[in-house]
Amino acid sequence: MSKVHDSAHVLENAIRESKEFIELKEAFDGVMNNPEAKEMFENFRDVQLELQEKQIQGLEITEDEIQEAQKVVDLVQQREDISRLMEAEQTLNETINDVSRIITMPLEELYGNPNS
Amino acid sequence: MSKVHDSAHVLENAIRESKEFIELKEAFDGVMNNPEAKEMFENFRDVQLELQEKQIQGLEITEDEIQEAQKVVDLVQQREDISRLMEAEQTLNETINDVSRIITMPLEELYGNPNS
Repeated sequence: MSKVHDSAHVLENAIRESKEFIELKEAFDGVMNNPEAKEMFENFRDVQLELQEKQIQGLEITEDEIQEAQKVVDLVQQREDISRLMEAEQTLNETINDVSRIITMPLEELYGNPNS
Repeated sequence: MSKVHDSAHVLENAIRESKEFIELKEAFDGVMNNPEAKEMFENFRDVQLELQEKQIQGLEITEDEIQEAQKVVDLVQQREDISRLMEAEQTLNETINDVSRIITMPLEELYGNPNS
């Protein structure tokens, strides 16, 4: 295996063992092991995905749909377990974005400076 | 800096020093340092991007536009320097895709197996 693949696996393990990922896993398992929280969270996800798909397809999102989505958001945000999961997802997301920025730096440098 | 960030920088360097990246940089510099090749390659990129944007926006791509794009592709593929660059881009792309697959495995496992 190449040095790139080796290094990618080292990074994979660092992510798996990071406090951000462990926190996410705990928060995720907490929600998934509570049927009421699980249903609410999955419903929230479904509503989110549905609106995203409409946006991507350039379809109109009605005022009713926005209000319905806001209700679902308000509901899940009142639950400590789901709020914790959403925060943990966002924190890990930021880490993954950092990682992406770092590992694409060689390409950024190449394509950003055509005469370098 | 966290272990995740450290590992990301190690991976960044492994990519920068990989034969795939060095080959890409050489091919890229070769094209960029030849005004005729540079213009042809940038024209090819512009046509590609224009069609991609139309596709994303759901706009119709005319038969004329397809033929025009095909002409540009045929033209650049006849040039060894540009073909080499396009192949090098594709090879590095595959490596980057491998890396992405590896480092998102912890998340795949978590979200792919909600009851694990």
